[in-house]
Amino acid sequence: MKNPVERLIEGLLKNDPHKAALICSPQNRRYFTQFPSSAGILLVTAAGAYLLLDSRYAEAGGKKAQYCQVSGYTNLSEKFGEIIRAQGIQQIYMETMRMTVAEARRFEAIFQEHGAEGVLDDSLDSAIRVQRMVKSPEEIAKMEAAQAITDAAFDHILGYIREGVTEREIALEIEFFMRRQGAEGLAFPSIVAAGPQGSQPHAVPSEYPIQKGDMITMDTGAKLDGYNSDMTRTVALGKLSDDKRHVYETVLKAHVEAMKVVRPGVICKSVDKVARDIIDAEYPGTFGHTLGHGVGLDVHEWPGFSTRDETPCEPGMVITDEPGIYLPGQCGVRIEDMVLVTEDGYRSLTHSPKELIEL
Amino acid sequence: MKNPVERLIEGLLKNDPHKAALICSPQNRRYFTQFPSSAGILLVTAAGAYLLLDSRYAEAGGKKAQYCQVSGYTNLSEKFGEIIRAQGIQQIYMETMRMTVAEARRFEAIFQEHGAEGVLDDSLDSAIRVQRMVKSPEEIAKMEAAQAITDAAFDHILGYIREGVTEREIALEIEFFMRRQGAEGLAFPSIVAAGPQGSQPHAVPSEYPIQKGDMITMDTGAKLDGYNSDMTRTVALGKLSDDKRHVYETVLKAHVEAMKVVRPGVICKSVDKVARDIIDAEYPGTFGHTLGHGVGLDVHEWPGFSTRDETPCEPGMVITDEPGIYLPGQCGVRIEDMVLVTEDGYRSLTHSPKELIEL
Repeated sequence: MKNPVERLIEGLLKNDPHKAALICSPQNRRYFTQFPSSAGILLVTAAGAYLLLDSRYAEAGGKKAQYCQVSGYTNLSEKFGEIIRAQGIQQIYMETMRMTVAEARRFEAIFQEHGAEGVLDDSLDSAIRVQRMVKSPEEIAKMEAAQAITDAAFDHILGYIREGVTEREIALEIEFFMRRQGAEGLAFPSIVAAGPQGSQPHAVPSEYPIQKGDMITMDTGAKLDGYNSDMTRTVALGKLSDDKRHVYETVLKAHVEAMKVVRPGVICKSVDKVARDIIDAEYPGTFGHTLGHGVGLDVHEWPGFSTRDETPCEPGMVITDEPGIYLPGQCGVRIEDMVLVTEDGYRSLTHSPKELIEL
Repeated sequence: MKNPVERLIEGLLKNDPHKAALICSPQNRRYFTQFPSSAGILLVTAAGAYLLLDSRYAEAGGKKAQYCQVSGYTNLSEKFGEIIRAQGIQQIYMETMRMTVAEARRFEAIFQEHGAEGVLDDSLDSAIRVQRMVKSPEEIAKMEAAQAITDAAFDHILGYIREGVTEREIALEIEFFMRRQGAEGLAFPSIVAAGPQGSQPHAVPSEYPIQKGDMITMDTGAKLDGYNSDMTRTVALGKLSDDKRHVYETVLKAHVEAMKVVRPGVICKSVDKVARDIIDAEYPGTFGHTLGHGVGLDVHEWPGFSTRDETPCEPGMVITDEPGIYLPGQCGVRIEDMVLVTEDGYRSLTHSPKELIEL
């Protein structure tokens, strides 16, 4: 696979020396250069990429950034002027979905000083979305490393859950474990929802103490090297009633059957439908969200296993498979893996067990 | 003090029924409604404020949001149409510094459908900045509660620091302590910089093990109820050399003397100058950042004790006082409190000791 800068030069700029792309958002800047920083400006031209860094980052960027030339600056307009003139750039695409109105105006004014114009349509955002949807082997390795921490945290937390421990204590224990294992942070604030809270898909961990017979849904993920992981497991404290066990088995069936249909060419929404049909047959109206979302440098990206996403699966896409059943006042169950589309089908990046665990 | 919505209606809208303000950024939405949510749209008109929430938040918002009417919606354009027509709104100010180009376009199109126009200048951002610079007694109480956790974490970490413990271990211990004490998160990623790393003001905690004779700079803050705290202390492991002790005493003097001049009417940049002159007299060129920044719902806000900020101090402003001396390859020292401007001077919101501690 070509590197991200080469793919953008071919895909968006069509190797046209008069066109360029301005990338300022932290995730996209990191995607194209592999260099994390809280500030910096990437200008991609047909001749290559220029990462402009102020004095705080110029030294570190020079050592670590890839696929680009790193250049310190003190006067940004002069710096742009040099590159624009040297290459005869006329049009510069901008990230309209990630750039504020005030930032866009500031850059447009700078470009005009040097005879170029900013392009504020969705060309650049679309081109980046198409690229980022398909992960490189290096990106997949980073996501597997992040998920390995999440799997380890799940294994650890099974030994911590007991009667009387609160949702918030479980969430903190998971977070501390992940941070100790080297996670740079959480991919998102953990959801730990037990007993009646389980029916809220986005519950915030509360002071509720776990009780015998509760189901406990834990939706957590570690972030490592910029890449996110995302996993949900629901476990039980003590023996479950037959009713609750049947809810669990139905979600598990939806989760497993949906994953099985994933392969290149399958339309995303048809994967959602497999899971939805299984749940709707027995628990209609209890699965109120989409089956899954892309994961990568953002924890929610593209494409999605949703009822409307017409994207065909391609090798390298990583999408969650997370059906759920939510019975208000009773319980909730959700089971989630990250699924990688492979050349001949799929592979789950998640290795935690998913058969019902009764602690 | 009037509530934030009343202040905006008077200050920006001048009670003109044809004008309104659209507020979508999470911090500003929280500031005006006291309600935290990851999505939602606030429309402030001369008649009052309307918080538009989708089905995920409408119930919680109805119970918790203040100073506004909460309204669920399914079709956003219809909802805007109702309010625009009922009140005869013609112009709607927008947050150009916090809204993406794509979002702004989407809202402008909706407004046009109903005969109103979006105003994309800096009026709204400026009006909100002026309001948020001066904290209400309730906001100050929240910041003091956040700082109390940070003070407790400092006290805790003094018992944890010993020879061989790494910067990263110290940073994690501070973070875990704050989270256990109820902090919703860190105000920012902690800086723990020991020995030679101390000369980098923004060092990332490393695997460096603390050694006897090191100075350890810890810049940390807890976030509570949306509000940030921010404190730096430098301590020593073992007895310091006279040279290093003098560096410490010089920073402390700059910190204390600068704070003493704070009172209503004093121009921000003159506070920076007091500290800068003290350091430059003995260690010229070693204090490479501004003296301080405003703190609130954002950890860096307005005004600042910088060399250029001409804002006069007003009661209710909260600004950090954080001089530093950085000697490459040797050591660094920074001491930081959050300073509240009061009617007759100042009050520090930070209660941790600042005399040199040699552990």
